[in-house]
Amino acid sequence: MSRSFHPPQRILLGPGPSNVEPRVLQAMLAPLLGHMDPVYFQCMDEIQDLLRSVFETGNRVTFTVSGTGGAGMETCLANLIDEGEEVVVCVNGFFGERMAELAARWGATVIRVDSDWGQPFDMQKVRDAFRKSSARVVTMVHAETSTGMRNPIEELKSLRDVRDAILVADTVTSLGAHPVGIDRNSIDASYSCSQKGIGAPPGLAPVTFSERALEKIRNRKAPPRTWYLDVQLLNKYWGSDRAYHHTAPALMNYALREALCIILEEGLEARWQRHERNSGTFVAGIEAMGLEMLVAPEYRLWSLNTVRVPDGVDDARVRSRLLNSHNIEIGSGFGVFKGKIWRVGLMGANSNQNTVLLLLAALKSAIATRA
Amino acid sequence: MSRSFHPPQRILLGPGPSNVEPRVLQAMLAPLLGHMDPVYFQCMDEIQDLLRSVFETGNRVTFTVSGTGGAGMETCLANLIDEGEEVVVCVNGFFGERMAELAARWGATVIRVDSDWGQPFDMQKVRDAFRKSSARVVTMVHAETSTGMRNPIEELKSLRDVRDAILVADTVTSLGAHPVGIDRNSIDASYSCSQKGIGAPPGLAPVTFSERALEKIRNRKAPPRTWYLDVQLLNKYWGSDRAYHHTAPALMNYALREALCIILEEGLEARWQRHERNSGTFVAGIEAMGLEMLVAPEYRLWSLNTVRVPDGVDDARVRSRLLNSHNIEIGSGFGVFKGKIWRVGLMGANSNQNTVLLLLAALKSAIATRA
Repeated sequence: MSRSFHPPQRILLGPGPSNVEPRVLQAMLAPLLGHMDPVYFQCMDEIQDLLRSVFETGNRVTFTVSGTGGAGMETCLANLIDEGEEVVVCVNGFFGERMAELAARWGATVIRVDSDWGQPFDMQKVRDAFRKSSARVVTMVHAETSTGMRNPIEELKSLRDVRDAILVADTVTSLGAHPVGIDRNSIDASYSCSQKGIGAPPGLAPVTFSERALEKIRNRKAPPRTWYLDVQLLNKYWGSDRAYHHTAPALMNYALREALCIILEEGLEARWQRHERNSGTFVAGIEAMGLEMLVAPEYRLWSLNTVRVPDGVDDARVRSRLLNSHNIEIGSGFGVFKGKIWRVGLMGANSNQNTVLLLLAALKSAIATRA
Repeated sequence: MSRSFHPPQRILLGPGPSNVEPRVLQAMLAPLLGHMDPVYFQCMDEIQDLLRSVFETGNRVTFTVSGTGGAGMETCLANLIDEGEEVVVCVNGFFGERMAELAARWGATVIRVDSDWGQPFDMQKVRDAFRKSSARVVTMVHAETSTGMRNPIEELKSLRDVRDAILVADTVTSLGAHPVGIDRNSIDASYSCSQKGIGAPPGLAPVTFSERALEKIRNRKAPPRTWYLDVQLLNKYWGSDRAYHHTAPALMNYALREALCIILEEGLEARWQRHERNSGTFVAGIEAMGLEMLVAPEYRLWSLNTVRVPDGVDDARVRSRLLNSHNIEIGSGFGVFKGKIWRVGLMGANSNQNTVLLLLAALKSAIATRA
C-alpha cells in the first residue's frame, strides 16, 4: 500500500480551487495545536479580524465553518429559515437553483424570482415578489459561478423600503476578488469559500451574520436540525465562551489565516483592481481570437470568465487537450450551458498577466488542433 | 497584517488532535488538483479502498465527509433517522449524550439506555429497551472519549435475535487504534475522524454504510434536510457517477490517504498491539506513581487513557504546568468528571514508548511542583 501519489502540477483555471501561494502551503506546516490551546484561540481571533476586513464588515459573528462553501450555504439557510416561512430566492444560474433547493430542504416555501441563466435580474420583479409575499428572508448569489455573472447584491437593501428583510448573499466566487461590502450593502448573512478569491486550499467556509440575522436566529421556534452547522453553538466556540463544539481543522485555518494576511498586505482595492485588469486582458485576448464572452461587460465577473464555445468546436476535446497537453484545467458549462461555454477562473494567485498570456496561447492552440 | 504565526511545538496527548507524521504533512504539499480531475478521482478510489481496510469492511459506500468527526455523526444520524421514529441510544458518556441530542434534533423519539459515565452497559437492558420499542436504529459509542471506556459494539448484533436493526457505531477514537470490525460485528453505519488513531490532521470524517443502512436511507419518506451531508448525493460523487456535489478539500484527503498508507504498511494488528502495549506501559507507570486509572482494565481504551486526579491536586494547575513548562497537552475531564480525571491520548504516531516515558516524568514533576 506504499503506492506513491504524485499528481501533475496543474494550472487551475476552472471555477476553483485555484492554485495556492507557497506561503499559504507553508503555513500548514506550522506545529499543530489542539482546538482548546490558548495559542490556537489567538489564531482564531486573528482569523475573525482578518475576515471582517475582507468581508468589509464589523459583524461580531464572523468566522469559518469547518466545511466547504456548500457548508457555508447550508449554515446560512438552515439557521435563518424557520419551518414553513416564505423565502424569496433570486435564481439566474446553478447556484441560485441550489439556494432554492436548500431553502426548500430547510423548510421554506420558496418564492422564486427567475431570470434566464446568465441574464440580469429585473429588480422590480424582485421587489414585487417580496411585496406580495410574507417573506422575511431574501437571497441572491453575488457571483454566479455557473454563468460568470455578477448580480446586484447592492440593490437588495432597497427592499427595506417595502418592509424589514434579512438579506443573504452568496459571495463564494466574489470574496477576495470583487468588493462585497457586507455592511455598506446592508447584507445580513453571507458565506464564501477558501479556495477562490481568498487563495487558500479548499476546506473552509467563511461566514458572517449581522445582529439583525442573529436576532432572527435567536427567535427561532426550535433550534435548526443541524448541530454541526448551528450558528449559536459555533459562536459559543468562536466567541468569548470558547465552549468546545468540534475539533477544529487547525491546519486549514492556518492556511486561511496566511491567505487573508496576503490579501490585506496587497490591499483590498489593489486586489480587486488586479482581478479587474487581468480579466480585462483575458477578454481582450479572447475577442482578438474572434471568440465571444457570454456575459455583457457591465455584469461580468473578474474572477470567473465565461467564453462561448465557437460553433463547430468540440468543448470536451479542447478542455481535454488543455488538461493533458498543457496541464491547464478550465471549467465546462453545465445545465443550459453544457457544451456551450468554458468557465475560466482567474482568481487569487492565478489572476496574473503571465497566466492569462499562457492560457490564451494554449487555448488558441487547443482549438486549432483538430485531432 | 504580516504578523507572523509561530505556534509552539506541542506534544499533543489530549483527546485529539494527535501529532502528525512528517510524511503525512508532506503529502499535503503535493500539487493541488481540482475535484473533477481524473487524477483526483484515482486518489478518491484509493482512499475508499484504504478506508475499507481500516474499517474492516467490504462496504461499497465508504468515503470521507468534508468535515470533522461531528459531521460524521451528523451524517449517520441525519440520513438514517426518519421523522418521528424511535431510536435506541446507549449513553455512558459525553459522546453518547451527543448522539442522543443529535438523534432528537433529527426527529427521533430517543429511547435512552443509560449507564453512569464510565460504567459498562448492561446489555440485557439494551435488549429489553429495544424489544419494548419500535426502534429500527440502535446507536453506541465504541470508544467513549469523555471517559476512556471501550463499549461492546460487538454485542449489538445479538439484537437481531429480537428483530432486524440498523446498528450505528461511533468509532471516532477507536479507528486505527483498536479493532472495529465493521463487517465482523455487523455494524451498519459508522463514522470516525482523521486526527486520532488515523494520524492525519483534523478536518475529515471517514464514514461507512452497509447495504442494509442504504436500503433504509433509500426508503426514507423525504430526503434529509441536510444537503451537505446527504449520503445519497455524496455517493453520487464518490461513486461511479462522479457527479459534482461540493469542492473537495483535496489537501486534507491527500494527508488522509498518506496516513492510511502508513497504517497498512505497519499492519492493522501490529498497530493495535502497539497501542495496547504503550497504553499498558503508561498504566504501569501511573500505578507505580500511586495514581489510579478511572476505568476497569477490561474496558480500558488504549487510545485514550483516563487517570483519576489525586485528592488535593489541582487539575488545572497540573495541566497548565504540562502545557507551559513541557509543551505537553493532555485533556481535562468534563461533565461529571470535570476536575476529576485527566484524559491522555496515546494515538497514532504518539503511541510510542518515548512519549509515554516523557509524559510520565513530566506529569510526576508537574504534580510534585507546588507553585
